[in-house]
Amino acid sequence: MTPNGTATAERAVARPVLADLDLPAGKRVRLHRMLYEHGVGNGTLLILPIDQGIEHGPIDFLPNPPSADPEYQWRLAVEGGYNAIACHWGMARRYMKKYAGKVPLLLKINGKTNIPSDDEALSSPTATVADAVALGADAVGYTLYVGSPRQDEDFRRLMRVRDDCEKYGMPLVVWSYPRGAAIEEKGGRDSLYAVDYAARLAHEFGADIIKLNVPKKGDKDSLMPEKYQELEWDYEEGARRVVATAGNSMVLFSGGSKVSDEDLMHKARTVMEQGATGLIFGRNMWQRPYEEALDMTARIKEMLQRFPS
Amino acid sequence: MTPNGTATAERAVARPVLADLDLPAGKRVRLHRMLYEHGVGNGTLLILPIDQGIEHGPIDFLPNPPSADPEYQWRLAVEGGYNAIACHWGMARRYMKKYAGKVPLLLKINGKTNIPSDDEALSSPTATVADAVALGADAVGYTLYVGSPRQDEDFRRLMRVRDDCEKYGMPLVVWSYPRGAAIEEKGGRDSLYAVDYAARLAHEFGADIIKLNVPKKGDKDSLMPEKYQELEWDYEEGARRVVATAGNSMVLFSGGSKVSDEDLMHKARTVMEQGATGLIFGRNMWQRPYEEALDMTARIKEMLQRFPS
Amino acid sequence: MTPNGTATAERAVARPVLADLDLPAGKRVRLHRMLYEHGVGNGTLLILPIDQGIEHGPIDFLPNPPSADPEYQWRLAVEGGYNAIACHWGMARRYMKKYAGKVPLLLKINGKTNIPSDDEALSSPTATVADAVALGADAVGYTLYVGSPRQDEDFRRLMRVRDDCEKYGMPLVVWSYPRGAAIEEKGGRDSLYAVDYAARLAHEFGADIIKLNVPKKGDKDSLMPEKYQELEWDYEEGARRVVATAGNSMVLFSGGSKVSDEDLMHKARTVMEQGATGLIFGRNMWQRPYEEALDMTARIKEMLQRFPS
Amino acid sequence: MTPNGTATAERAVARPVLADLDLPAGKRVRLHRMLYEHGVGNGTLLILPIDQGIEHGPIDFLPNPPSADPEYQWRLAVEGGYNAIACHWGMARRYMKKYAGKVPLLLKINGKTNIPSDDEALSSPTATVADAVALGADAVGYTLYVGSPRQDEDFRRLMRVRDDCEKYGMPLVVWSYPRGAAIEEKGGRDSLYAVDYAARLAHEFGADIIKLNVPKKGDKDSLMPEKYQELEWDYEEGARRVVATAGNSMVLFSGGSKVSDEDLMHKARTVMEQGATGLIFGRNMWQRPYEEALDMTARIKEMLQRFPS
Amino acid sequence: MTPNGTATAERAVARPVLADLDLPAGKRVRLHRMLYEHGVGNGTLLILPIDQGIEHGPIDFLPNPPSADPEYQWRLAVEGGYNAIACHWGMARRYMKKYAGKVPLLLKINGKTNIPSDDEALSSPTATVADAVALGADAVGYTLYVGSPRQDEDFRRLMRVRDDCEKYGMPLVVWSYPRGAAIEEKGGRDSLYAVDYAARLAHEFGADIIKLNVPKKGDKDSLMPEKYQELEWDYEEGARRVVATAGNSMVLFSGGSKVSDEDLMHKARTVMEQGATGLIFGRNMWQRPYEEALDMTARIKEMLQRFPS
Repeated sequence: MTPNGTATAERAVARPVLADLDLPAGKRVRLHRMLYEHGVGNGTLLILPIDQGIEHGPIDFLPNPPSADPEYQWRLAVEGGYNAIACHWGMARRYMKKYAGKVPLLLKINGKTNIPSDDEALSSPTATVADAVALGADAVGYTLYVGSPRQDEDFRRLMRVRDDCEKYGMPLVVWSYPRGAAIEEKGGRDSLYAVDYAARLAHEFGADIIKLNVPKKGDKDSLMPEKYQELEWDYEEGARRVVATAGNSMVLFSGGSKVSDEDLMHKARTVMEQGATGLIFGRNMWQRPYEEALDMTARIKEMLQRFPS
Repeated sequence: MTPNGTATAERAVARPVLADLDLPAGKRVRLHRMLYEHGVGNGTLLILPIDQGIEHGPIDFLPNPPSADPEYQWRLAVEGGYNAIACHWGMARRYMKKYAGKVPLLLKINGKTNIPSDDEALSSPTATVADAVALGADAVGYTLYVGSPRQDEDFRRLMRVRDDCEKYGMPLVVWSYPRGAAIEEKGGRDSLYAVDYAARLAHEFGADIIKLNVPKKGDKDSLMPEKYQELEWDYEEGARRVVATAGNSMVLFSGGSKVSDEDLMHKARTVMEQGATGLIFGRNMWQRPYEEALDMTARIKEMLQRFPS
Repeated sequence: MTPNGTATAERAVARPVLADLDLPAGKRVRLHRMLYEHGVGNGTLLILPIDQGIEHGPIDFLPNPPSADPEYQWRLAVEGGYNAIACHWGMARRYMKKYAGKVPLLLKINGKTNIPSDDEALSSPTATVADAVALGADAVGYTLYVGSPRQDEDFRRLMRVRDDCEKYGMPLVVWSYPRGAAIEEKGGRDSLYAVDYAARLAHEFGADIIKLNVPKKGDKDSLMPEKYQELEWDYEEGARRVVATAGNSMVLFSGGSKVSDEDLMHKARTVMEQGATGLIFGRNMWQRPYEEALDMTARIKEMLQRFPS
Repeated sequence: MTPNGTATAERAVARPVLADLDLPAGKRVRLHRMLYEHGVGNGTLLILPIDQGIEHGPIDFLPNPPSADPEYQWRLAVEGGYNAIACHWGMARRYMKKYAGKVPLLLKINGKTNIPSDDEALSSPTATVADAVALGADAVGYTLYVGSPRQDEDFRRLMRVRDDCEKYGMPLVVWSYPRGAAIEEKGGRDSLYAVDYAARLAHEFGADIIKLNVPKKGDKDSLMPEKYQELEWDYEEGARRVVATAGNSMVLFSGGSKVSDEDLMHKARTVMEQGATGLIFGRNMWQRPYEEALDMTARIKEMLQRFPS
Repeated sequence: MTPNGTATAERAVARPVLADLDLPAGKRVRLHRMLYEHGVGNGTLLILPIDQGIEHGPIDFLPNPPSADPEYQWRLAVEGGYNAIACHWGMARRYMKKYAGKVPLLLKINGKTNIPSDDEALSSPTATVADAVALGADAVGYTLYVGSPRQDEDFRRLMRVRDDCEKYGMPLVVWSYPRGAAIEEKGGRDSLYAVDYAARLAHEFGADIIKLNVPKKGDKDSLMPEKYQELEWDYEEGARRVVATAGNSMVLFSGGSKVSDEDLMHKARTVMEQGATGLIFGRNMWQRPYEEALDMTARIKEMLQRFPS
């Protein structure tokens, strides 16, 4: 499963398997639905996120104006056969009727605009776990800003969400993002140090699934703690390391801003080879005409068939 | 419905129709009352707001002293046949007796004075959704300051109000206003970027109705994100774009400070043509002698008859 | 009732009459007790406030040392036949026994010392509405600092107090005071702009009675919004205007720091002529020997007999 | 009782007598136990405080190392026959077994370290009134920082503590301390202005007993409000004034840092002559060998016999 | 037990014995399990902490990559026969199944990343005492940052945790760490002044067990209060002093960053001789190959057999 292991790969990576995990029944039911009854159905995940309207504003829809209509993503999630659509309450409550039950809902329960500075980033509630239950959701998504000066509020909120998830048997997906002035002074949000820390923190909170960005080398790497500067690593190893750090939490990698199709396919395949459980691709999907989005979805899903668990 | 569509009009606009929306029974009942049993009765809205006493202070009454007496607006709302009067608790609780049931109440449940700086704007509670239920209101109004550094408190409050609205079947009207130091550095509160973001954010929170200002070109446009600077648009297209961005939430446009009657009629007609569901005109109505206000109300309502849904 | 109406008097003033107001039974009972069963008994109010021990400290007692003993004010309120005594919990709970029921209690439920700066003024809770009920009080008093940067906390607290008052049928008296750095930059706390805004804000919160200072001309008037600078007004008109702005909320004017007896009588008579419901005089009463205080009380009450409602 | 009355002594001082006070039964029972069943038993109070471990840290134990062991103070309180021992939860819960019932417990329920700056002093909860009930305490102690910029939080907490005390019949002792940057700019924490204000504020909150420091003349006296600068006073008059300002709340004076035995005896006798109900002496007692502490305790108690009430 | 007592050792140290303490039944049961049914079983403690993933991030695992897998520490705790493993919720909930009941769980219920500055350190909740009960834990661990400017929030939280511990009979272990800008200006976090204060503060909160670092001499010692500068002390005396200051709370000393085996053994033996109840060694254990970690564990336990209680 890690055929390209580099010389610095010191840890064996095994994709977590649902049947091996010690989980409450409700989490087991819902995760089974997402992992084995939707998408490719082999234990991998392909998630369609449409929370950018809050995080970035409608600017993300300008390259493909039809994507501004929530119907676009709902149709794509159902017709493309995704494992889940990830969105906020308004988009679920006001558009689900036609699609209810045809694709699992991963209700994003916090968010923020990117208008004020990110120096003291904190994601703000848009819904509760109980709201997710009421909508028939199969998971909730919580953004944790690792290293932000407002981590105290973040921890308290995540703890309560985590407890509600335990109570309701609702799978918890943590968007684990290094963010804030302090992390920028220690290598930056995409550094290996930062993403590795993010993976561990979300895992320590008991996340069932952790969404990460693939670590990147950058011009602030010399600000990282020395031990991280000494590590030798490449794209594959970076992904593998943070997957391992996430322990028995499943890892989703994001796509980020739109890249070429070949780059996207390469990226997707590589992270799966390094132990990721799945992918969460938004702009790379819906910032293109609908039929092209369906095609690309099919290509990704074909690739995912090679990673059963 | 969009006869003046410009070259840059890329999206078709359809006014949301109550019967098509997936809503709890209570919201359906109350919205039906406002849309079809009051005002023109054809699915359009003409709302009389009298919350300026908090937002601006009694200064707004100086041009027409009798308007300082709450009886003025209550009489006007009833005799003019508005779809609703929008005001705070004190004005409702202490003046409604004579008018109870004769005009729907849209209870504004937060507000603030404009005395301190708006850099970190946050609207403060003046009533609860339960208070609105107790007053027999048909909707509540919540001001959201999009992009303010205090968005965290704003989101948390709106989420709770939204949940109460869902529980009580109370329609939620969001006054969605870009505000704060950060938005001023990115083009300003009336820029297309700002209003477009505001429309989406309120929609993502599940607002039934969104009150917006029509976007304007301004001397800070060069501070907007580049993609917004590249768009070609005029008044009609600006209105249409933000109506589209609001998805299946209905849009009300405000009148703002007083303009000439011809400008007001032109503005009102234009935004209706671009897909607005209605108008919320305060100072343009009550900053004039009572009989003139009644006349102008009648002219607006005559125009609205051309926009049934 | 407004015999001295000046040329700029544009609004007719009518003192609110209890029987005309739409109020819950408990408020009606308690207001009736204060307005018609105590004091002059003709619908006017003469209130004795003794909250200066918190607001200014015991410095206010230095001109008349016996006034430092709470018994002084309790005796004066009962023997002088005031409509109510206004004080905090400690003074009520520890001294009422002998006076219980002999004079209505207006329990002040927030306050602050004047030791730290007023730039971000916020009055802090000293008791709850339920405490007032337990003490057999006939009203509660809440200080609202209009225009303070901490208005958000103020609004939230006042809203909850207001709701408790509605629930328990407890009349709500709002001490509506412009305060904070922002209002000082817009003309100052005693400017017509500031007091007029304060009258409206308290009214919009549904106050039953509003305590105001009479607006004054000052050397910062040129900082007021232009429309207020253009107004022509004198003492009478200033009082009348803010009484009118308070709508059907009753208005109490305060006496402030001690003035000559003639000035005090003149001030009292004038504001009553302009539509005030009553007076709240503290230092002007108890900063003098007890017998003199009784005499002055009698003079004020004689004057109030001319303003029945 | 005030034989040394100076020319400026304008107020007669009468020590509050329990039987005359209007109190709930539980407070009466517990105060009776402290005042008449322990200590001298004549209505005076001698309290042993051992909260310095939080307020100053173990540095206070260095002059007399055995005093670092909580057993030292518990033994001294019981064997010396104090009216109460004042300490925090940990010292009570973990050491009381042997001493339970042999000396009343005055549970201190807030505190803070003196490590950060006092500019915005706020004392923090260490226990609740319900905890005090569970420990069989006869009173709770709350530190109020008069004039601190954080007075809002302080007031809110004290109000809730006060309400719990009323509910449970638990006597409330307020450590009323002027503190914070603002009071230092107005004469300082020990000035007559400051202590006088502190006495009044605690009294207005309904404190049963108020702990004060005796006011001192200092080099910042010229910063006090003018009226306080004009007063003529000495040590006796300072004590008498603040006792009078405390109304029918009983006053305890503290000993502060260690002084000579003669000074201590003189100080103790003097404040009792000026109307204090008792003394709260910590470091002056336990910063000496155990037997000496017992001796000094006996000397103080002998003196207290001269002040029955 | 203190054979190396120096000339400045003024206090006799006695290790607290469970049977002598006044504790609720549940605490007694759980402490008995940790002290006498696990580890050496003679009343000493050897705890394996694995909370560094939150406090420092995965950087601590780089010297020994297998230690990044939570299975490593769980196996070591069980096979090495520790008295307890200390970790956060996620590591307990997701990995305990195989190890449940084989080693006591000390659930760490707050934590923070070290990414932002420690100037205003505050540890944030990751779980509740009720969560610990649900996991069958035998103790909870709370980090208190002594001297931090945010001590108010810290105190409030610790008080509530302490009350829950009392209610559920859950032993409370306080990680008592001097931290924040203010303590750095008074000698630093490891100074005798700081650690001594920390020991007392945790004890005053009623901690059953207190985790301390051994005080160190440092180049900021001249910033300590004078009385601490005057003390003569060495490593032994430093340890003994803070153990004594902790009163009848048991003391655990930490190992800190990895040192040589001989230094570790020496340190461990010395602090036990000075009255510590046990050791909490993390990095010194798991930053080495598994078999070596087992060996060192055995060596430490052999030494602990000499300290029964």
